[in-house]
Amino acid sequence: RRYQGSPTGTDLECRGWRQEAALRLLNNNLDPEVAEKPEELVVYGGTGRAARSWDAYDAILRELRELGDEETLLVQSGKPVGRFRTHERAPRVLIANSNLVGKWDDWEHFHELEAEGLLMYGQMTAGSWAYIGTQGILQGTYETLAEAGRQHFPDREGLAGTVTVTAGLGGMGGAQPLAVTMNGGVCIAAEVDERRIDRRIETGYCMDRAPDLETAIERAEAAAEAGDPYSVAVHQNAADFLEAMLDRGFVPDLLTDQTSAHDELEGYYPSGYTVAEADDLRESDPEAYVEASLDTMARHVRAMLALQDRGAVTFEYGNNIRGQVEEYRGVEEAFDFPGFVPAYVRPLFCRGKGPFRWLALSGEPADIHRTDEAIRELFPEDEALLRWIDLAAEQVQFQGLPSRVCWLGYRTDEEGLTERARFALRINDLVREGEISAPIVVTRDHLDAGSVASPNRETEAMRDGSDAVADWPILNALLNCAAGADIVSVHDGGGVGIGNSLHANNHVVLDGTDLAAEKARAVFTTDPGMGVIRHADAGYEDAIDEAERSGVHIPMRREEGDDA
Amino acid sequence: RRYQGSPTGTDLECRGWRQEAALRLLNNNLDPEVAEKPEELVVYGGTGRAARSWDAYDAILRELRELGDEETLLVQSGKPVGRFRTHERAPRVLIANSNLVGKWDDWEHFHELEAEGLLMYGQMTAGSWAYIGTQGILQGTYETLAEAGRQHFPDREGLAGTVTVTAGLGGMGGAQPLAVTMNGGVCIAAEVDERRIDRRIETGYCMDRAPDLETAIERAEAAAEAGDPYSVAVHQNAADFLEAMLDRGFVPDLLTDQTSAHDELEGYYPSGYTVAEADDLRESDPEAYVEASLDTMARHVRAMLALQDRGAVTFEYGNNIRGQVEEYRGVEEAFDFPGFVPAYVRPLFCRGKGPFRWLALSGEPADIHRTDEAIRELFPEDEALLRWIDLAAEQVQFQGLPSRVCWLGYRTDEEGLTERARFALRINDLVREGEISAPIVVTRDHLDAGSVASPNRETEAMRDGSDAVADWPILNALLNCAAGADIVSVHDGGGVGIGNSLHANNHVVLDGTDLAAEKARAVFTTDPGMGVIRHADAGYEDAIDEAERSGVHIPMRREEGDDA
Ligand SMILES: NC(=O)c1ccc[n+]([C@@H]2O[C@H](COP(=O)([O-])OP(=O)(O)OC[C@H]3O[C@@H](n4cnc5c(N)ncnc54)[C@H](O)[C@@H]3O)[C@@H](O)[C@H]2O)c1
Ligand SMILES: NC(=O)c1ccc[n+]([C@@H]2O[C@H](COP(=O)([O-])OP(=O)(O)OC[C@H]3O[C@@H](n4cnc5c(N)ncnc54)[C@H](O)[C@@H]3O)[C@@H](O)[C@H]2O)c1
Repeated sequence: RRYQGSPTGTDLECRGWRQEAALRLLNNNLDPEVAEKPEELVVYGGTGRAARSWDAYDAILRELRELGDEETLLVQSGKPVGRFRTHERAPRVLIANSNLVGKWDDWEHFHELEAEGLLMYGQMTAGSWAYIGTQGILQGTYETLAEAGRQHFPDREGLAGTVTVTAGLGGMGGAQPLAVTMNGGVCIAAEVDERRIDRRIETGYCMDRAPDLETAIERAEAAAEAGDPYSVAVHQNAADFLEAMLDRGFVPDLLTDQTSAHDELEGYYPSGYTVAEADDLRESDPEAYVEASLDTMARHVRAMLALQDRGAVTFEYGNNIRGQVEEYRGVEEAFDFPGFVPAYVRPLFCRGKGPFRWLALSGEPADIHRTDEAIRELFPEDEALLRWIDLAAEQVQFQGLPSRVCWLGYRTDEEGLTERARFALRINDLVREGEISAPIVVTRDHLDAGSVASPNRETEAMRDGSDAVADWPILNALLNCAAGADIVSVHDGGGVGIGNSLHANNHVVLDGTDLAAEKARAVFTTDPGMGVIRHADAGYEDAIDEAERSGVHIPMRREEGDDA
Repeated sequence: RRYQGSPTGTDLECRGWRQEAALRLLNNNLDPEVAEKPEELVVYGGTGRAARSWDAYDAILRELRELGDEETLLVQSGKPVGRFRTHERAPRVLIANSNLVGKWDDWEHFHELEAEGLLMYGQMTAGSWAYIGTQGILQGTYETLAEAGRQHFPDREGLAGTVTVTAGLGGMGGAQPLAVTMNGGVCIAAEVDERRIDRRIETGYCMDRAPDLETAIERAEAAAEAGDPYSVAVHQNAADFLEAMLDRGFVPDLLTDQTSAHDELEGYYPSGYTVAEADDLRESDPEAYVEASLDTMARHVRAMLALQDRGAVTFEYGNNIRGQVEEYRGVEEAFDFPGFVPAYVRPLFCRGKGPFRWLALSGEPADIHRTDEAIRELFPEDEALLRWIDLAAEQVQFQGLPSRVCWLGYRTDEEGLTERARFALRINDLVREGEISAPIVVTRDHLDAGSVASPNRETEAMRDGSDAVADWPILNALLNCAAGADIVSVHDGGGVGIGNSLHANNHVVLDGTDLAAEKARAVFTTDPGMGVIRHADAGYEDAIDEAERSGVHIPMRREEGDDA
């Protein structure tokens, strides 16, 4: 309602590019092209907000416009609460969202405090102003599904000839159909909200819609038979949809889910209601809503388990649906299917790899195309990376500020520069040389190699049992602050819901200056480095190997020298 | 066992004073004169440790000796896990202790992970290397009791003529008898562990011991009658002791408790066992221990409530004894007596005041005496402060590195310097000029104005209901890191037990350089400033007044202008 628009170009509203970057990123998160419900300040992932209220939004923008080059603004759950003199290499903005003391760290206390206007749910990149629309998740989904394909269908090209079934076409889940087709496969996705289906079809993330499950399965089987990529959405509740699939005797090759099951009140829709009816019930009787929602979720998971029994390769896609039904509906077998992280992502984390991303503050697509070229120049030997860059350049429509994401890691070169640092320093040079028209801001998801503790997702089933240890994301935030990131944030509850995770991220603004180069060099070493040391500490060979290969100093390894 | 001794003097083992300070502080925390159980690396407060293991201790010292002026060491629950290049103004050491993801954030999960060697309980200043023995708490206790005296016995001089009853003469609780006598009052304290009584008498913190409660009460009443300061310890379990007091019909003027009730397994002793027997039971049958311990605690609180009914001014002294018996023994009236913070401390927090402290790295008492003089020079108008400094200089025996504590706040002068910054800059000058023989390190408790969320203690009954919001300590840590503190730490569970609090602190090394002056000026503005903004945000008049008086920028006040 009071969205001030998303400034682009090379004229500054703020006193420097670091502040301007924060201002543009916040606005970009709320850009109607980017945000799922901008009028409510909701960016994605259930109720992940960018600011606590429109008053808070206005105040943040006002503060950013006034903020000096040696000052730091404090944002507490989406509200600006202070501004202090620090120094030039310190962050310009520090953010803490949704954090609660452990014993009170659950949705119930969160909602009470939210109702009092004291807290905001920041999800991962909503409250930290690092969301870039569905592309952000597209690369992760692409990589995850590619890895699933390699592991389970080694004889096929990618996912060609296979059918993947899922549900939820929201801010992140909407990336699934495209990620499947980019891998050559076929996808059937259930979604209760027709508007979400419209949106995925408009933006090219989903190819088709079917009037019912039967039709969807027929078309999907035909495409798979022919080896063609194809995606189709069905307007149906996921639990009903999977039960119908069981009745019909259809078994997908891959099965997952990206409804916002982590939030049973505001993210997941119960069966037996239209979206409008459910929205009314949520208002009038939230307790009844929660009960109905959890009942549907239990049916949903039981159907997934039944399809797994019949041969579908089944995994949770980071929405805590297993944890929810185990805790609230006693579905003890829920954890019989794995999470996507231990299954497909952890080997990358061990090497400091994670969802690294950047945005062109100019608003110019050409600036991102130049960064795509830089990737091709810097990493000519990395085929998977280059395939992604080509597909992305071709198929991804920009939403809001043009941006790109790809997974880069630690892996130092002869000069000791990590992949991430090499890229950032190159881009900083291109900005200095004017080949890129305005600064690029480099950031990442909170879900990264060394930045998150989330026992039902990123740190599920850690080798040493350290799943719930949250010292790591805190050290990650402090260290990136020390290294000179321009924005640092710490959130509770991203992805899997309040009390289930703690995580951090950071931004560095590449404005072509020497200061930016110093910051980039430090932050893009410390940040992926945390991933390496965290996984080496847990005893993962890949991480220990990466530390040795790339010279990451691990104080207690030299004493132990064991398999940890 | 493998304690390497506590270096003093002006020769460095490390590559700079910042690193040397960390090394000396860690060793000081484990100095047998300072630590409660140095052989187990336990510094104070139940099992608050300085390092995870002796191997980890050795490795930290080795890392600190190697650490460069532009490097940062990471300590995860008392174990060094990484070392990265940052920059000169960044912290040299970053520490995260005992942090768990919310849903797992309790003693049960903590103890499992601790047994696996993955976590360490850092208490507040144990794992952050800022403990200074019982003096640290003495000033806080002195101020708290003085305020209690002002509120409840306005016609008396301090506590003269009143009897205060308490229990627990451990690392912090041991300060109680001396704080009472410094205020002119009489104190009777119960303690189950005779060695603790011996220690308090040896160090001058307690004057006398009595063979039984009757004798103690007789002597106490005589001293109170005469208006003389007097303190006496009784070797007895607190629950038995208070029940006996009820039987005898004696009602103290003030009543509190500082057993380590926050930790029912390792901090609190059940009735019916000697210390040795209880220690055996803890080993052989921890579950039985916990049950017996909680049973005793319930009797203990019920006796406090009964004495309160009879007229004793009763308050909890930050050990979560009310929360424990409410949660585990259903004693719902437990919260009928208040915590010491809302009762006596919060008005100070609103003005950024808190337990500011410093240590002489030289090991020379003369250096601290010079700082005492600096206090007298800088704050000649503050009578309470000067009385404390005089009494402390006279009565406090140094333990380990000579140190001093006093509560300083924000309250800027004409140049915009806070009380804390004024003091630190003055000391930095004295170090530069050689009037102080080696650098002074300035730090504070984790319990401070803007650094802690602890709903049963520091943030109990906040005016706006924001007790459990933990964004604040995280912002505090990030901001002090940004401002250039030399050590920054974030801990879970200090004082009130795992899952019940989140808190941070920082150190700045005053080595006489310009860099130290810059850091001190920034950190000692941001740090007490967090206290002012946190309490202003919660609607406290004192904080809003302080912000206006001292020019603390509060972004959303100018819009609201209400009573919040
Ligand atoms: N960071 C990650 O790696 C990651 C990756 C993927 C997904 N996730 C998780 O996946 C979930 C989805 O994220 P999002 O941003 O797309 O959320 P979102 O809230 O924007 O979208 C959820 C979608 O699910 C639909 N939906 C809800 N209940 C349904 C039901 N019962 N049947 C069918 N459709 C239903 C909603 O209409 C909505 O379109 C979240 O829990 C998120 O945390 C995380
Ligand atoms: N930061 C603060 O302001 C603050 C201030 C004071 C106290 N506290 C809290 O007070 C408690 C004590 O701290 P500490 O450092 O002195 O702990 P400690 O563990 O060193 O000492 C506790 C003492 O209590 C004795 N004790 C235990 N159970 C007893 C019983 N049933 N009867 C009689 N004596 C018993 C023990 O023998 C021990 O000497 C902790 O919970 C601490 O967190 C906090």
